[in-house]
Amino acid sequence: MQDTLTKLKNRDKEIQLLSHTIALLGWDQETCIPEKSVNERAEQISLVEGLIHDRVTSEDTGELFSLLGADERNPAGAPGLSGNDAAFIREFYRIYKKRMKLPKELVTEFAKVTSLAQAKWAEARSKSEFGIFAPLLERIVDLTRKKADCMGYSLDPYDPLLDDFEPWMKNSELASIFGKLEPELSALAVRIAEKSGRVAPVAVDGEFDERKQREISESIMKMMGFDFGSGRIDVSAHPFTATLGSKDVRITTRYITSDPVSNVYSTIHETGHALYEQGFGDELYGTLLANGASMGLHESQSRLWENMIGRSRGFSARILSLLKDAFPAEFANVTPGDFYTRMINRVKPSFIRTESDEVTYNLHIILRYNLETRLVRGELAVADLPAAWKAESRKLLGIEPSNDSDGALQDIHWSFGSIGYFPTYALGNLYSAQFYAKLVEDVPDADGESGSFADDTIADILCWLREKIHSRGCTLTAADLCGKVTDAPLDPNFFMCYLERKYGDIYGL
Amino acid sequence: MQDTLTKLKNRDKEIQLLSHTIALLGWDQETCIPEKSVNERAEQISLVEGLIHDRVTSEDTGELFSLLGADERNPAGAPGLSGNDAAFIREFYRIYKKRMKLPKELVTEFAKVTSLAQAKWAEARSKSEFGIFAPLLERIVDLTRKKADCMGYSLDPYDPLLDDFEPWMKNSELASIFGKLEPELSALAVRIAEKSGRVAPVAVDGEFDERKQREISESIMKMMGFDFGSGRIDVSAHPFTATLGSKDVRITTRYITSDPVSNVYSTIHETGHALYEQGFGDELYGTLLANGASMGLHESQSRLWENMIGRSRGFSARILSLLKDAFPAEFANVTPGDFYTRMINRVKPSFIRTESDEVTYNLHIILRYNLETRLVRGELAVADLPAAWKAESRKLLGIEPSNDSDGALQDIHWSFGSIGYFPTYALGNLYSAQFYAKLVEDVPDADGESGSFADDTIADILCWLREKIHSRGCTLTAADLCGKVTDAPLDPNFFMCYLERKYGDIYGL
Repeated sequence: MQDTLTKLKNRDKEIQLLSHTIALLGWDQETCIPEKSVNERAEQISLVEGLIHDRVTSEDTGELFSLLGADERNPAGAPGLSGNDAAFIREFYRIYKKRMKLPKELVTEFAKVTSLAQAKWAEARSKSEFGIFAPLLERIVDLTRKKADCMGYSLDPYDPLLDDFEPWMKNSELASIFGKLEPELSALAVRIAEKSGRVAPVAVDGEFDERKQREISESIMKMMGFDFGSGRIDVSAHPFTATLGSKDVRITTRYITSDPVSNVYSTIHETGHALYEQGFGDELYGTLLANGASMGLHESQSRLWENMIGRSRGFSARILSLLKDAFPAEFANVTPGDFYTRMINRVKPSFIRTESDEVTYNLHIILRYNLETRLVRGELAVADLPAAWKAESRKLLGIEPSNDSDGALQDIHWSFGSIGYFPTYALGNLYSAQFYAKLVEDVPDADGESGSFADDTIADILCWLREKIHSRGCTLTAADLCGKVTDAPLDPNFFMCYLERKYGDIYGL
Repeated sequence: MQDTLTKLKNRDKEIQLLSHTIALLGWDQETCIPEKSVNERAEQISLVEGLIHDRVTSEDTGELFSLLGADERNPAGAPGLSGNDAAFIREFYRIYKKRMKLPKELVTEFAKVTSLAQAKWAEARSKSEFGIFAPLLERIVDLTRKKADCMGYSLDPYDPLLDDFEPWMKNSELASIFGKLEPELSALAVRIAEKSGRVAPVAVDGEFDERKQREISESIMKMMGFDFGSGRIDVSAHPFTATLGSKDVRITTRYITSDPVSNVYSTIHETGHALYEQGFGDELYGTLLANGASMGLHESQSRLWENMIGRSRGFSARILSLLKDAFPAEFANVTPGDFYTRMINRVKPSFIRTESDEVTYNLHIILRYNLETRLVRGELAVADLPAAWKAESRKLLGIEPSNDSDGALQDIHWSFGSIGYFPTYALGNLYSAQFYAKLVEDVPDADGESGSFADDTIADILCWLREKIHSRGCTLTAADLCGKVTDAPLDPNFFMCYLERKYGDIYGL
């Protein structure tokens, strides 16, 4: 048994080394690559992806799982395996099983169509012409439905798709969470809208030097505990976090010279992701268990730092000092109160998800979720998507975009074929609030309203996250981890309470 | 036949994609990697190297060669194959044959020992204690001799080693070239030394801003015709050129704040390498023929730009203007004549190869060649190397280093196991002078003494190099290419004539 397990671990080690190599190929593509090399880079990535696929699905991988007693009924292998070993088999077998069910032609076809689709989506969006993207999106929806059919499901074709990003969660659970969340969020948004006059926006004017913005990013990362010995920060068009090795976690940002606050919160967000990746237990080094428990869990780590901590009174006062040090003239008249209330926590329905506030953000997600589940079930035709988007937007946000660039063409995700991804953003917000409530019990100074955010407190917060969440990697499923950390299953009520308290105060509800 | 060839080409394509992936892993290691990730990076590289090895040596690669009629007697396959196809088989079969002869244990052992040796070499060098490095160098020499035995040779164990870097050249030819070169070079060096009082050194003082140095690098690269759409420049401890894709050629440099001239000539040198890589014919795209004909040929392209062009009166006057524009105060009193004679073309025997001038450089190489051939033949024990180095240095350069850091521990190459590499530096110098003589016949304005180096002339030079050399990749062997371009076999006389003319003028010989 131990021998077989070692063989499976060696197989996994190769896969992890190759996955990190793909991460480097991808990171370099977003940060460094010369323009003429993009097509060949796609070939390099696709070749290495094929090597991973071969290793996951090879006959002897299957034999190893048989020998370990892993099957549909015992996804974590035969009884008697210890915690991390069982978790290792559970996660590896989950991936193996899904990959085995996908015919190689479908995988190749999917890769081809989505690679074409990205360029078409960009063109369609820039021209705001949905028709340019529609034929490819039809192919993508069609292939996604085929994928779901191949992977199999008992109730809902959305289940295996969601599982790609939020392992082990079923759509029935998600639907029930969103069903509870939506009316409460909408009601809160309406109450805030009625008081919107209370909070007039404040903006800063000027040309904010990139070098100084970069220094602010680095100060924040150091303050949060990012280890520059095993990571770095670079620039890309869209910020992201990439793991190129067990000790190589890189974030990116972009510096907008007219707006130094954008980079600040993007850096906090990505550093939140990066701290998770830098915090996996040493015993998980180089294995598939050195991964986030789910995309939602991962997002909870970025959002907890970005919103619960980063947009709190105490922490945002520290951010403001950094901004005042770097740009004294421009921020001279901004008080901590103004910064908190009128710059970083204003609530205002907008068309664009990435620019939206904490209150309306999840409504943007529910909008996309409502549409993509209907697409997958064949209840909505791609041709009808733009109109359906507008209708959902009016229903959920009370506003309707005038063009498709701000509507059905807004996000890149569907062009990647990432159907089932959007909900993890909302789950991240919900998890973050639930973790945060527990964190404040254990580390009272982490409280957003009254807490101190001295260096010691920040260190205590990271320490708590490391112990309770980061160090565990994906040894526990997201649901088990949530239960273990908070003594409760995922419950949107934590998030609503957090919002009620914070925005009740700001808007005098 | 065509079918078989296509299969072999597909195999090669995978190998090229993987080789470029390794180039990215290596480039990133020298330019970006966080310190704690270095060990895991070595594992990533070694895994991908193993994948290439498997592809080169797999049984069906061998079958493809049989079907194509390639064997020891017909290394370019059966008669009837066209030029590039025959060249493709010739180069692939050469690599295949050598790899097949090396037992995997020897390859692994070699990789392990050299990986340890690099750290030990660095330690030994910093302490100037040869004893720290000696045991590992003994292992390396031993394994290298085994490698040579496995690969096989008819006369000289140095032949298969040299062939790794200078394909198709035999040591008998090299020995005869060096035998002719050495006395003539030594005699010239002595004549110059007698006149050394004629040329007093000039130096600039100051703190030279890195950003401005970088701008100078970019100006020079643009001036030389480097395509930034398929390449870039970064910083690393030791400058190098790397090819990460057919359209992705990157150079590195280092900015010494006390010496802006160092970066300038390093940039010209690496850009010379990069222009070769950017100039391979489109029909060679993504194949193994999109490679330099040999390391010597590659070095000829860097040295031609660095020395024949870059250190000429005309071109160096342009360089000086760039330096004066960036650092007007510091370079105020430097005339073009001073820059040419007293800063960039002074001849002075030194201990260090990388700091040596055009006249003595090849003597440094002959020194290393004399020692490494004796090591390989078992005529010199590693323990006796430091003393032998000093003796050779006195004989060839007339000076003797007082410590091993400046002697037998000077270069990193042997710690990599790169025995057979050094001669390619000297070959590069010889090829460059021979090509240059022909270039000046066809493009008279490229003449160093009297030519103009206007943008048009530089474009003409690149055009000539592209047509005669770059576009051909390694479709021709280095010897055939030299014959085709210059109507003569490699002859050190071209190099000696170049030196006599240039330094005869400077030193009034």
